[in-house]
Amino acid sequence: MSKTKLNVAVVGATGAVGEQIIGLLEKRDFPIDKLKLLSSARSAGSRVTFKGQEITVEEAGPDSFEGIDIALFSAGGDVSKELAPHAVRYGAVCIDNTNAFRMDPNTPLVVPEVNESKINEHQGVIANPNCSTIQMVAALKPLYDRYGISRIIVSTYQAVSGAGARAIDEMKRQTKEVLEGNDANPDILPVGSLPVKHQIAFNAIPQIDKFQDNGYTLEEMKMIRETKKILDDESVLVTATCVRIPVVYGHSESVYVELKEDYNMDDIRSLLSDAPGITLVDDPANQLYPLATDAAGKNDVFVGRLRRDLTNERGLNLWIVSDNLLKGAAWNAVQIAEIIAANKSK
Amino acid sequence: MSKTKLNVAVVGATGAVGEQIIGLLEKRDFPIDKLKLLSSARSAGSRVTFKGQEITVEEAGPDSFEGIDIALFSAGGDVSKELAPHAVRYGAVCIDNTNAFRMDPNTPLVVPEVNESKINEHQGVIANPNCSTIQMVAALKPLYDRYGISRIIVSTYQAVSGAGARAIDEMKRQTKEVLEGNDANPDILPVGSLPVKHQIAFNAIPQIDKFQDNGYTLEEMKMIRETKKILDDESVLVTATCVRIPVVYGHSESVYVELKEDYNMDDIRSLLSDAPGITLVDDPANQLYPLATDAAGKNDVFVGRLRRDLTNERGLNLWIVSDNLLKGAAWNAVQIAEIIAANKSK
Repeated sequence: MSKTKLNVAVVGATGAVGEQIIGLLEKRDFPIDKLKLLSSARSAGSRVTFKGQEITVEEAGPDSFEGIDIALFSAGGDVSKELAPHAVRYGAVCIDNTNAFRMDPNTPLVVPEVNESKINEHQGVIANPNCSTIQMVAALKPLYDRYGISRIIVSTYQAVSGAGARAIDEMKRQTKEVLEGNDANPDILPVGSLPVKHQIAFNAIPQIDKFQDNGYTLEEMKMIRETKKILDDESVLVTATCVRIPVVYGHSESVYVELKEDYNMDDIRSLLSDAPGITLVDDPANQLYPLATDAAGKNDVFVGRLRRDLTNERGLNLWIVSDNLLKGAAWNAVQIAEIIAANKSK
Repeated sequence: MSKTKLNVAVVGATGAVGEQIIGLLEKRDFPIDKLKLLSSARSAGSRVTFKGQEITVEEAGPDSFEGIDIALFSAGGDVSKELAPHAVRYGAVCIDNTNAFRMDPNTPLVVPEVNESKINEHQGVIANPNCSTIQMVAALKPLYDRYGISRIIVSTYQAVSGAGARAIDEMKRQTKEVLEGNDANPDILPVGSLPVKHQIAFNAIPQIDKFQDNGYTLEEMKMIRETKKILDDESVLVTATCVRIPVVYGHSESVYVELKEDYNMDDIRSLLSDAPGITLVDDPANQLYPLATDAAGKNDVFVGRLRRDLTNERGLNLWIVSDNLLKGAAWNAVQIAEIIAANKSK
């Protein structure tokens, strides 16, 4: 069976996630006929090499999607809201990496290891969940299937790359300044569009995205709402505290999970070892556990520091790490695209 | 009433905590007659300026404590175990900043804002709790007194200074190397005496101190055991995940706490605003919350990000930050010393 070759568009091609998507399409030898790279007017005209060929980035507009089979969006929620309907109008399937459609009841929210079958229910748009949610649900899914989950309490240690390429530059600049004894002069984080800025170099900022009326940040509410939607189970109780720390790539998460049944730790280890896309790194005697620096550049979700909660027999503590730009964004999107491509080839 | 002047010894005078203790004794105008600075043989001979006078650091030994009223130890658990009994023999009250005596049933474990009265029960040694425990119990005590606490789940974001001055130097060196594209070549963290080293620059290491047989680190077990002892309540359930992040000064903590009774958020705010040693920084609309960089150099414990748990009416989430070398170590010890000095002056 020969693979059907597809026309693919990447919207936000010059951004931190867009670059990763293009890299993965090349590395995975995705069945591409034509690759169209789109961006804002500001970045249009720049050139990207794909499989030895230079492609000029074009400005994205309502009519950019003629003949496109799959459009991967990662240029911010407003761009997706504006342009995805046009891509759908031209017959493309949109895989949207922004928050624009995630909680839309007509849009599947997909982590392939968790709910791949939802892909088939799309009405033009498939949403890629939030980075911090993806790695958590991917790791917890095998436990959910076997024991059920009543409750999750998560605290995150999120990398700066989640805020984009400019935030990485800012962290590096601040770090150099502070090491030289100068002021950090924060300019972007925690939220570019908000007035107050905080130093990220040698700091921990307990704000990712805007505050909601209930005192939680949008990032925290994303983790709460998206986890329920992806697991298709509103009964799972989720509490989240999301924190930005001075790491470039790789979100880490301290997760307390309460299972619905008594569990066996050896069984948990087997479940995680056998799960697709999960790598168990859990050997305290040899000081082995997942680390952001080890996860960077890899597609898998890394799980370790497994230990039974000392206060609750059904409680389990774990440490979940993954590259936020890969499984947390680009890789999850390309996985979905590969499944769509495979279905088209059937 | 004139203050009785005391002879004070600082053991570990050249260490990260020792330096802070000496600074606080000067800044607080502690009623000192004679200040004796003690260290290992390696650091003996170095000179420290105290109130305009140079003091030569002497090598600590069993007979260093003649005439000493208060001895402040922060030179590691082995030194405290060896020398504190000698200091007691000479009639000194030891305030020990190490893990050596914390869980000894005959040694009070004191955070003045929580259990000041325990100071009077000492039999020669008063233990200063672990840094990450101190700031948490100080912040939770007002809530404990008013509502009772059934459960605490904490994830920490701990500063490198908690591992000593050499660890700070190592982090700065690594950070420069990584920014220049070189290897970090880790040499000290996570635990100097263990064989495996991990990069701390731009990373998060979920190991502080050695692993215990139950899969928890000693730091995590300290938080669990010490919290119960300080609150004098074995019924409080505590779960901890302790993580080192690239911050120089200031531990941050994401804390979920379950109160025993229904609570009123305005009342919680009042309790924390009125509590001694606590500063409430909680104004999401203006993006104000505690930050390690703001807490550095200050004695208080900073609390913010207060929000009712969405899954449990009696659950409360908060973010607790304090300078680990000050309230987490030196300041808590000097507070205890000031109370002892005041009692002697009565």
